Amino acid sequence: MEIFFQILVVLVLARLFGEVAERLGQSTSVGELLAGIVLALAGLALASLTPWLADLPDSAVLAHLGNLGIFFLVLTAGIEMEPKEIAETSKGAFLVALGGMLVPLAAGCALGWLIVPDNPLRVPQVLVVGVAMSITAIPATVKVLSEFDLLHSKLGETVVAAAVFDDVFGLFLLAVVTAVVQTGNLPDLGTALWLLGKIALFFAITIALGVHIYPRVSRGLKQMQANALELSALVIAALAYGILAELLGMHWILGAFMAGLYFEGARVGAAVSRDIRVTVAAITGGVLGPFFFVSIGLSVELEAVAALPVIVGALIVLAFAGKTLGAGFAARLSGLPGPAALAVGVGMTSRGAVELVVLRVAQEAGVFAVADGDSAIVRYLFSALVIMALANTFLMPLALRAVLRRRGPDAPSRGGGES
Amino acid sequence: MEIFFQILVVLVLARLFGEVAERLGQSTSVGELLAGIVLALAGLALASLTPWLADLPDSAVLAHLGNLGIFFLVLTAGIEMEPKEIAETSKGAFLVALGGMLVPLAAGCALGWLIVPDNPLRVPQVLVVGVAMSITAIPATVKVLSEFDLLHSKLGETVVAAAVFDDVFGLFLLAVVTAVVQTGNLPDLGTALWLLGKIALFFAITIALGVHIYPRVSRGLKQMQANALELSALVIAALAYGILAELLGMHWILGAFMAGLYFEGARVGAAVSRDIRVTVAAITGGVLGPFFFVSIGLSVELEAVAALPVIVGALIVLAFAGKTLGAGFAARLSGLPGPAALAVGVGMTSRGAVELVVLRVAQEAGVFAVADGDSAIVRYLFSALVIMALANTFLMPLALRAVLRRRGPDAPSRGGGES
Repeated sequence: MEIFFQILVVLVLARLFGEVAERLGQSTSVGELLAGIVLALAGLALASLTPWLADLPDSAVLAHLGNLGIFFLVLTAGIEMEPKEIAETSKGAFLVALGGMLVPLAAGCALGWLIVPDNPLRVPQVLVVGVAMSITAIPATVKVLSEFDLLHSKLGETVVAAAVFDDVFGLFLLAVVTAVVQTGNLPDLGTALWLLGKIALFFAITIALGVHIYPRVSRGLKQMQANALELSALVIAALAYGILAELLGMHWILGAFMAGLYFEGARVGAAVSRDIRVTVAAITGGVLGPFFFVSIGLSVELEAVAALPVIVGALIVLAFAGKTLGAGFAARLSGLPGPAALAVGVGMTSRGAVELVVLRVAQEAGVFAVADGDSAIVRYLFSALVIMALANTFLMPLALRAVLRRRGPDAPSRGGGES
Repeated sequence: MEIFFQILVVLVLARLFGEVAERLGQSTSVGELLAGIVLALAGLALASLTPWLADLPDSAVLAHLGNLGIFFLVLTAGIEMEPKEIAETSKGAFLVALGGMLVPLAAGCALGWLIVPDNPLRVPQVLVVGVAMSITAIPATVKVLSEFDLLHSKLGETVVAAAVFDDVFGLFLLAVVTAVVQTGNLPDLGTALWLLGKIALFFAITIALGVHIYPRVSRGLKQMQANALELSALVIAALAYGILAELLGMHWILGAFMAGLYFEGARVGAAVSRDIRVTVAAITGGVLGPFFFVSIGLSVELEAVAALPVIVGALIVLAFAGKTLGAGFAARLSGLPGPAALAVGVGMTSRGAVELVVLRVAQEAGVFAVADGDSAIVRYLFSALVIMALANTFLMPLALRAVLRRRGPDAPSRGGGES
């Protein structure tokens, strides 16, 4: 019974906060994460009245559901990405993604090196600070761009395509972080090349399977008229790819992502692709995603803000500035006019599922493990990075609306970058 | 990693066996259950080579997935049932369901009383034997009737409608069993009336909510243009109904069933209903259902057959005969000619999700708990009942095809009962 109450309360509150966030022009995940924080606070405040609420952060079932949420969030990221779109997008978007990744990555690592004191896990911790700053999520950006009717302008298309590259970069960086965590230090040149080789092998195998095997299996299943087999096939592919990724020293979520990537209409049939999208979106957005975001919220320690106000503030500002400058300058270089380039940069500052998944994976790999005598910075690093993601995701719509309004009525309402 | 291997192997083997069973004109669940038995045997045989295979029966994650499977199987049973259809079906189908339930229930309880020796849980055990005999599942029957183009004949419609009533009876009996397990004995008259009152209250509340609240919530959600909210809403309703059921002393699966029941096009909109059906069918048939059936197969002890050959045989024969005679006579009484009535009776003998869910629920409630000194019958009762369900489900298509063929070319190919 208790577990039913817990699941029900989490799901209702997460969906409620998520919908309210949407109505306020914010990202759903911001609301769901806040629901987790509120539940944790309520649990502390009402511990004596409602022990089942206080038990939430330690619930094994919620943790399992959150992990299933990671699986489906990454699968969704893969499914919603069209490999053809990636191949067709301009060099400009690639540049924006690269600039928007490298600048905050470098800035984050530099800040991390300054603030994280010496401890056995310092190198992976510093790296995670950089990686956390370099990842982008754009559902909220897409909404703001739609409000201004700019989604199909050069500005909008650049942001969307750059965010796609950014996701791939982020997962690639995760592969590096996972490897670094295993050794505890940066790899030497030989190890780095070996790691790169394994990553390349992984992508070669999964892309070859996606391009050549998916359509055949799909035709075979169609001939068998197998019911409900498509979701099975997708989950089976994701599990098998996940095992392959782990065997090659990467994290299984890379496998889940690649399994979703080629599950597109052109390869598995339009009807199958449509039903799979509906199904996976419903599972992810409607049930398992909320559990993941709530589980993150439940594990955030708000004391981090009180203990490290300057550092948390510095993380938030640097993440915002690094992303805006890195992506914005690259956009300017690739030919967008100044105001549109600034909008691209600001639009790339919000964070979401992939960033939080990377933080959770790093946490579970022990990157944030605290030993006696560790400083407050090590102790609160995970929470500080989640708060950074939350603050950036919250600030982006406000900032982007301000930037787009300032472009004023003289800017064309569509095609903001076609000058 | 190990858990990935386990999940992958279970899912692949279950879907493979399930599809092969379908090709052979059998029910998918028979194949998936056999996959579980095969995995258990393989685990024993290869214990030293592949410890992760031997660990399967004790895997907590598989058990969780199996339980999620129960939730979605019952939800699916509710969704696929149309309350209007039930209200519109003839008195004939109701009679067939009643006869097809009461005769095997009585026969099962009588046999149970004979074979189960004295032990503290004898009353619930005897009751579960009867309930297990009285439940029907007809996916395989529908397939056979389709082969003979009889699905829309009076014969076919009687079977389908009777099976619907049968599901409701089965869940009602489960409520009784759950109550009996709690006290360990048959309730006295006062308690029985109290239980009946609570069951009536539960159905009154959930039906009223389904009829009056579902359409309003659905309209509200539509106005909010909430994405992916429908699956949330369904899961939230199922959890809330489940809690209500538990508060009233019933099992939560009754709540999940009732939550699905009113999630139909007429109340929540055709498009929503269609997407929800696709989604829930994919989750249930494609992923979670297989885990449930495999988990049942993994927990079957085949030694039961060697230890109790006569009793297992008697259970199988009595379940088949009781169902055929009870439903068949009722069909004859309600006006179907002899051969068609026999076909109705035989068509009702197969078992499936609801029966196995009831057995699992009884098992988890401790009905089959074994103490030192208990006889082999108590020890193997759960396995014997699963084997009974498996054998009946396997035999039904063979027997029904034989009956339908014997009706010969003189019988009309459609409308086998319109004489």
